[in-house]
Amino acid sequence: MNVLVVNCGSSSLKFQLINSETEAVAAKGLCERIGLDGRLVYQPTGGEKEVTEAAMPTHTEAIKMVLDALVNPNTGVLKSLDEVEAIGHRVLHGGAKISDSCIINDEVISVIEECCDLGPLHNPANLMGIRACMELMPGKPNVAVFDTAFHQTMPEKAYMYAIPYEYYDKYKVRKYGFHGTSHRFVSKETIKFLGLDPDNSKVIVAHLGNGSSISAVVNGKCVDTSMGLTPLEGLVMGTRSGDLDPAVLDFICKKENIDVTEMVNILNKKSGLLGLSKGLSSDFRDLNEAREQGNEDAKRAVDCLCYRIIKYIGSYVAAMNGVDAIAFTGGIGENAIPVREAVVKSLGYLGITLDEEANQTRGENKIISTPDSKVTVAIVPTNEELAICQETAELVSK
Amino acid sequence: MNVLVVNCGSSSLKFQLINSETEAVAAKGLCERIGLDGRLVYQPTGGEKEVTEAAMPTHTEAIKMVLDALVNPNTGVLKSLDEVEAIGHRVLHGGAKISDSCIINDEVISVIEECCDLGPLHNPANLMGIRACMELMPGKPNVAVFDTAFHQTMPEKAYMYAIPYEYYDKYKVRKYGFHGTSHRFVSKETIKFLGLDPDNSKVIVAHLGNGSSISAVVNGKCVDTSMGLTPLEGLVMGTRSGDLDPAVLDFICKKENIDVTEMVNILNKKSGLLGLSKGLSSDFRDLNEAREQGNEDAKRAVDCLCYRIIKYIGSYVAAMNGVDAIAFTGGIGENAIPVREAVVKSLGYLGITLDEEANQTRGENKIISTPDSKVTVAIVPTNEELAICQETAELVSK
Repeated sequence: MNVLVVNCGSSSLKFQLINSETEAVAAKGLCERIGLDGRLVYQPTGGEKEVTEAAMPTHTEAIKMVLDALVNPNTGVLKSLDEVEAIGHRVLHGGAKISDSCIINDEVISVIEECCDLGPLHNPANLMGIRACMELMPGKPNVAVFDTAFHQTMPEKAYMYAIPYEYYDKYKVRKYGFHGTSHRFVSKETIKFLGLDPDNSKVIVAHLGNGSSISAVVNGKCVDTSMGLTPLEGLVMGTRSGDLDPAVLDFICKKENIDVTEMVNILNKKSGLLGLSKGLSSDFRDLNEAREQGNEDAKRAVDCLCYRIIKYIGSYVAAMNGVDAIAFTGGIGENAIPVREAVVKSLGYLGITLDEEANQTRGENKIISTPDSKVTVAIVPTNEELAICQETAELVSK
Repeated sequence: MNVLVVNCGSSSLKFQLINSETEAVAAKGLCERIGLDGRLVYQPTGGEKEVTEAAMPTHTEAIKMVLDALVNPNTGVLKSLDEVEAIGHRVLHGGAKISDSCIINDEVISVIEECCDLGPLHNPANLMGIRACMELMPGKPNVAVFDTAFHQTMPEKAYMYAIPYEYYDKYKVRKYGFHGTSHRFVSKETIKFLGLDPDNSKVIVAHLGNGSSISAVVNGKCVDTSMGLTPLEGLVMGTRSGDLDPAVLDFICKKENIDVTEMVNILNKKSGLLGLSKGLSSDFRDLNEAREQGNEDAKRAVDCLCYRIIKYIGSYVAAMNGVDAIAFTGGIGENAIPVREAVVKSLGYLGITLDEEANQTRGENKIISTPDSKVTVAIVPTNEELAICQETAELVSK
């Protein structure tokens, strides 16, 4: 089944056309600066990348351009749009009502609208993409694949914050978690790759990229994850602080004479690796290079990044009372050899020994613990677009 | 050596007169409502409790009343104040400059003053107590025992927040940790009680009370702790939230139309067990009783409390790459049998088995893991006043 996978931001739209059986990507690309001047980057697999500047006042014009490109007689990959059998949309926030992907109907749209409050930057954009596809390809099934859905199996003790209960009652303030599509995909892949028993397995997935999160997965179900009400909580990320004393916000607001909205904006955009490295970079690759050349600011940032990962893994092992496998995924997880090395070397107490040679691998399924290790550690690349394609095809075929 | 141990709050003052050799408490008590109407509660060991209402406009008058009570011909325990050989003061915040207890001189007073910014409620009160003792017992050595000092051995990766570095540079925003006197005392006691090698030991101390914190101690030195810039970070406490997504503050401020100072106040005073239990109680004993009677709100609060402890212990085991002993201390740690049971039962992956019978113990040194456990778990009561007495005597005798 040909599935068009769509991921809308407020002024951007990423897409891939994927065949769910062969897993082949026919074409992919990106619309940028929607609502401003507009730009489409389109690349058919095996073909040249094409850049078109054109006005895209809304997501509808952007989707229209994508569809035109897909059926263009010269560079297109489809004869007609009839060949697109379903559209899979990445949607950020499904709140507490949605625990799985859904074929989009009025009720699902209402839930996405209700959750705009919880995902104010993403949910409205996701809705624009959904409505544009409905308008331009009437009758085709649209599926919403939620970033939060996989984490809905968390128990109350994991998702409740220790704040006045009325905030949960009135505003649904709780931990939701994100990157769920990736955590679901990678935890499944890990079980398959390592031959674990799906009904008797404890897996930790470390999704480490510019945004990072860790999840604890028991028998395929998420029991805890590091991101919270928003993607700010948890690990040290490119520009996000992750965890810190909540009183720090008040302390700095007073010192700098700023309000809490500005402070949280700083914690989202100017913190993390960027903040720790004194503004050197938010990109792990830059920092790792600088660190290897002896830069202390880069070293500090990388040390803090690794240390927080180590602590989260440790806490999830305790939360599950044991672990069978730990999977590294995402840009940093799949490629950053020194991060995996630092993390795995701190897990010796679990009976894990790093296979240093295997750890030289990047971006492919690979066991990086020695065969005699009591817990298996592996690289398991994520593929969120493929996961969205698969979940879409599965729902539509039912 | 007779040491007067003094712990000043903004309108209160607790004291104990302790002999550092025999560890005997000669008398103890409390001044309340200093600056308001004033009330002294005084109790000589073995004698009747005495309550005196009297004006105490400042901490000086309060200390004066305490000293008068100590040498009172009828109920006093000293013939003259000459028998008080030193005064040990609990001081909240020593910032990054102080890593041990100090005999108080002008320089130490300057540091305590500088740190008022970091401990705005406590440090000024601590200074008032110190100055009152200096005035009323001129020439006697005064020692400051800092709540933060023990944690100053934490490495950078543990104490840095992933926020713009300038906030550390300009305002010293970092993790400091608290309850240091207790963590130092209990980690030492644990090493002694269990016969561990002081120079080759990994100990986790869970200090669980109305305020709670956990520390990781390698070879007697703290390497991480759960409280942060302030005592708000970390575990679920009586009324404090501990960790949560920093974005929650902005979210709730907007919904409730309050500012961040009010929000942090709510996180300090109306959250934790109190918030989770829908206002039922901040006291673990009340909640445990209600939970045993089937109250769901109490169960939620206790479950969240235990779960957070489990995760912190797990994270510190990973931070140290192993652990030799775990000590429970503080009001909850020493007495709450079901908390210890829930926590220890989630640590089976470390080769720990709970000795259910031993776990029925309250408030005394006791090993509660079975003899074949690979990590020893114990109850090790804390005694912060005795610790302050001992540190004071040690410094004064040098």
